[in-house]
Amino acid sequence: MNETTVVEYSEKQLENPVMIVGLPGIGLIGKLVAEHLIDELKAEKIMEIFSPCLPPQVNVNADGTTKLVSNEVYAWKGDGKTPDLLLLVGDYQSVTNEGHYELAGIYLDIADRFKAKRIYTLGGYGTGKMIDQPHVLYATNTVKILEEIKGYGATFNEGELSGGIIGASGLILGLGELRGIEAVCYMGETSGYLVDPKSAQAVLAVLCKALNLTVDTKELEARAQEIEKIITKIKELEQQQQPAPPGPRDFTAEDKYIV
Amino acid sequence: MNETTVVEYSEKQLENPVMIVGLPGIGLIGKLVAEHLIDELKAEKIMEIFSPCLPPQVNVNADGTTKLVSNEVYAWKGDGKTPDLLLLVGDYQSVTNEGHYELAGIYLDIADRFKAKRIYTLGGYGTGKMIDQPHVLYATNTVKILEEIKGYGATFNEGELSGGIIGASGLILGLGELRGIEAVCYMGETSGYLVDPKSAQAVLAVLCKALNLTVDTKELEARAQEIEKIITKIKELEQQQQPAPPGPRDFTAEDKYIV
Amino acid sequence: MNETTVVEYSEKQLENPVMIVGLPGIGLIGKLVAEHLIDELKAEKIMEIFSPCLPPQVNVNADGTTKLVSNEVYAWKGDGKTPDLLLLVGDYQSVTNEGHYELAGIYLDIADRFKAKRIYTLGGYGTGKMIDQPHVLYATNTVKILEEIKGYGATFNEGELSGGIIGASGLILGLGELRGIEAVCYMGETSGYLVDPKSAQAVLAVLCKALNLTVDTKELEARAQEIEKIITKIKELEQQQQPAPPGPRDFTAEDKYIV
Amino acid sequence: MNETTVVEYSEKQLENPVMIVGLPGIGLIGKLVAEHLIDELKAEKIMEIFSPCLPPQVNVNADGTTKLVSNEVYAWKGDGKTPDLLLLVGDYQSVTNEGHYELAGIYLDIADRFKAKRIYTLGGYGTGKMIDQPHVLYATNTVKILEEIKGYGATFNEGELSGGIIGASGLILGLGELRGIEAVCYMGETSGYLVDPKSAQAVLAVLCKALNLTVDTKELEARAQEIEKIITKIKELEQQQQPAPPGPRDFTAEDKYIV
Repeated sequence: MNETTVVEYSEKQLENPVMIVGLPGIGLIGKLVAEHLIDELKAEKIMEIFSPCLPPQVNVNADGTTKLVSNEVYAWKGDGKTPDLLLLVGDYQSVTNEGHYELAGIYLDIADRFKAKRIYTLGGYGTGKMIDQPHVLYATNTVKILEEIKGYGATFNEGELSGGIIGASGLILGLGELRGIEAVCYMGETSGYLVDPKSAQAVLAVLCKALNLTVDTKELEARAQEIEKIITKIKELEQQQQPAPPGPRDFTAEDKYIV
Repeated sequence: MNETTVVEYSEKQLENPVMIVGLPGIGLIGKLVAEHLIDELKAEKIMEIFSPCLPPQVNVNADGTTKLVSNEVYAWKGDGKTPDLLLLVGDYQSVTNEGHYELAGIYLDIADRFKAKRIYTLGGYGTGKMIDQPHVLYATNTVKILEEIKGYGATFNEGELSGGIIGASGLILGLGELRGIEAVCYMGETSGYLVDPKSAQAVLAVLCKALNLTVDTKELEARAQEIEKIITKIKELEQQQQPAPPGPRDFTAEDKYIV
Repeated sequence: MNETTVVEYSEKQLENPVMIVGLPGIGLIGKLVAEHLIDELKAEKIMEIFSPCLPPQVNVNADGTTKLVSNEVYAWKGDGKTPDLLLLVGDYQSVTNEGHYELAGIYLDIADRFKAKRIYTLGGYGTGKMIDQPHVLYATNTVKILEEIKGYGATFNEGELSGGIIGASGLILGLGELRGIEAVCYMGETSGYLVDPKSAQAVLAVLCKALNLTVDTKELEARAQEIEKIITKIKELEQQQQPAPPGPRDFTAEDKYIV
Repeated sequence: MNETTVVEYSEKQLENPVMIVGLPGIGLIGKLVAEHLIDELKAEKIMEIFSPCLPPQVNVNADGTTKLVSNEVYAWKGDGKTPDLLLLVGDYQSVTNEGHYELAGIYLDIADRFKAKRIYTLGGYGTGKMIDQPHVLYATNTVKILEEIKGYGATFNEGELSGGIIGASGLILGLGELRGIEAVCYMGETSGYLVDPKSAQAVLAVLCKALNLTVDTKELEARAQEIEKIITKIKELEQQQQPAPPGPRDFTAEDKYIV
C-alpha cells in the first residue's frame, strides 16, 4: 500500500452536518470525547482511512483477531434539535510531517463532500500542573464566530496558545481556512501527564452546548480508566523490548558509515 | 535504484501454497524458523526483493564477495501430506514507515499471484523476563479460523498483545484483511534480550503441526549460535565507529541552522 | 495538501527589485531585520507559501484566531534612491532535508519571475561567546561583487565560515549560482544563545547601506523582546508536554519491533 | 530543486575507463585518496551531481565565495600503462536512506555510459584501536576476480566485514552486481577516531598497484592535516550553535502533540 486509502462502508445522507474530530493527543481528551459521543449516540461507521503515514501496526482484539490501525468516520442523523454529525476518530495521527498535511487534506475533503457547515476539533492543552477545574480554551480560523464559540463556555487568554496548535487539529484549522471551511478547536486544560477524563468532561460539556445536545457522561471515566490500563501495559512492553538483532536500523545518522 | 525491484529467478508452479514469513525481529525467532525450514526442506530461491527502504548495505560473505541486502522468496513443492510452501525471509525489514506499507503490499502481491491460501507470519513476543517454557501466542485477521489456529498448540490471553503487532507481521495481517487474504501470526514468548532458539523451537513445533510437517530441529540451535556470534561482532564494530568527519549529517533537528 | 502551494494576493509591478530573505535561524537575526523592514516600509503582502515540509501547525493570534504557518512575500515600490524590494519572511524553514531544496527552488522561481537583480539573504553566525560589537560577515555566489558587498561594512576572515552555510540561505546562494542569480548572505555575529537585536541592528546597517536606504531602528529592540517572551513561553510549554498516549510514534528505530 | 541534477561541463572521450570512488566516510580515507589522485594527475572535472538528498548547504571558499555541496566526476586520459580513469568524489554522501539508493544508481549510470570496465570504491574499516601498519581489506561483487584484487596487496580474513559495507560503497557493489558492473571495495584499517592519512597511503599503494600507476604521496599527509583543521573548526561551531528559536522542529516524535 503506497497511497492513503479511504474505504466506504455505507452511503449515508447527511444534511449540512457538523464534523467532530477527536484524534489521539495530549491527555487523550479529543479521542475520549469523540468516542464517547459515538457510543452514546450509536453513530454508524461509514468510512475508514488507512495510510502509509500511520504506524505499521495492527491492534489485537480481546479474542486474538487483529485490526489495521486507521482513522474512522462515523455518521449520526440529528434529531432536529441537534444537527447531523460526522465524527472522526482514530488510533493514531500521522507519524510523518508530510503525512499530517496529507491526512488533514483528506479530512477536509470528507467535510467538503458532506457539505459540513463547521468542524469542531477537540484536544488538550498541557499546563504542566494538576488542575482541579480545567478550563476549555478555544481557537478558530473564522473571526466572525469568535463570540459564538466563546459563548458555549470556553475561554481564551492572550498568550495562552503562543506555541501554536500542532498536528491534525492545527492543520484542520489552517488548511480549512485556505479552503473556506469554518473550524473551531476546543482544548481542555490538562496536566499533560495522564489520560484526563475530567478535562474531557469539560470539553464535552462545551461541545454539547455548541451542538445543543444532551448525553450521559458517566461512561467517560470508565473508558478513560480502561485506556489508561492499556497504555500502562504498552509502556511496560516497550521497556521490555530490546533492539532486534540484525533488524532495521536508522541510517540518517552520520556515525553509521563504515565506508 | 528509486523503486523496489522484484527479481525472479525461476517460474515455479505451486498449488494453493501456504506462505511462511520469517523476517528479522525480536529474538530473531521468525527468521530462525523460516531459514531453518528453507534449509531442511531444501526449498528453492525463486525471487528476491531489493528496495530503497532497506538499508544501503551489502553483506560480505566468507570469501570477500558481497550481496546486497534483500528479502528472498523460496518455494517448496509439498508432498501430499504437507501443502506447497512459499517462504519469505530477509536481512532486514523496511527502515522507513512508508516502506513498511510498500513492502507488505508487495508480499501480499506475491501471495495473491501464487493464490496462497493462508499466510503464517512468525515472530517473537518480548516479555522482559527469562522464560523456561515459552508459549506461542497467536493472532489472526480471520475470526473463523481462531479455533483452528489455537488447536496447533498456541495460546492467547486477553490483553497480552495490547501493544499491537508492529512491522511486517502486523501489516501482513492488517493489509491482508483489506485484501481478503487469510493470515495468522505466531509469536514465541522471549525475553527480548537475546537470539532465542528455544522460543524458535516452540514456534516451529506449532507451525509444523499447522502444516502437518515433520522436520529435524537440531540444527536450529547451531544456527542461533552462529547468528549470535555475528551480532556480537556487529555490535563491537558499531561501538568502534566514530562520526565520519564531513560525512552525512541529519538536518531535521533544529539546532543545525547556522543562518 | 500534498504539494507546496503558493497563494498570490496581489499582482504588484516591480522593476528589477532586490530580494531580501529573512527566515528564522540562529539569533533570529534575519527574521528580525526583514520583518522590521516590512513594518517600517509598510510593504504589501503579495504572496504566501504553504508547504507539507513546514511543521503541521497553526499559530494563534491574540484574539484566538489562527493562521497556518507559512512563508510570506512582501513587495515595496522603491523611491528612486532605493530599488524596489521583494521581502521574504516566514514562521519556519523546512523541517525535511528535501523540503529545503524544494522551498529554495520556489524562492528562486519568485526572484526569477520578478527579474530580481540580486538577493540578500540575512542570518546569524554563532560564535559561542557574548559579543559587544558584532561584525557582519559576508558570503556570495558571485565572485565579481566581492569588493562591492564588503564595501557596505561587512568583513570576512578566511576560515570563519568553514562549516558552510546551512538551510535556506545556503541553498539560495548555492542553487542561485546554478541558475545564474546573484545572491549575497550577510550574517551577524551572535552568541547563539539568544534572540539578538544588537546583531540584527548591525546587519540592518549593512543592508541599508547596500540598498541606499534609511530606516528607523528603535522598534527593532522592542520586537526582539516580544519574540523572546514568546519563545520562553513556548519552551515552558514544551517541557510540560508529556508523550501522548497511544499517539504517533517513530518507527525508524530498531527497538520498536515486536514481531 | 526537487530532483537530483547532473551538470556536465565537458564531453570527454574515455576508453573503457576504470572508475575510482572516494566519498566521505570513516577516517576520510576514500576521499583523501581520490582527491589526491585528482590533484596529482591533474584530472579534469567533467560532471557535477547536485541532489536534494545531500545536505542543504554551501561551502564557503577562502575569499567568501560559496559552492553548493555536490558530488563531482573527474576524468583522466591514461598513458597506455595506466587505464583511463573516472574519479568520483564529493562533499557528502546522501543523508536519507532512499537517497543512497538513488545516488548509487546515478553513479552506476555514469559508469555504464562511459563503459567503465571496473569500479574501485575506497573507504575505511574502523577497528577501534590505533594501528601502526594498517592492512587494506578487499571485497567485491564478482567472485572470479577475488585472486586478482587480493594480489594487489589487500587481505581479507573471514568474519572481518560481518557488519557489512554501508553507504555508497556498499550500494555500488550491491546494485552494481544486479547490473553486471564489476566493482571492488578497498578499505584501509583505521581507528575510526581521526582523519587517517597513513591508512589512506596504504589504500593508495594497493590502488596504484591495481592501476599500474605511480604517484607521489607526500602531499597526502598535508591534505589530511588541512582537512583535520577544518573538521575541528566545524565541531567547535556546532557546539556553539544553540537551537534556533521558533525555527524548524522535528515532528516525528510523539511528545510534540499539543492537540
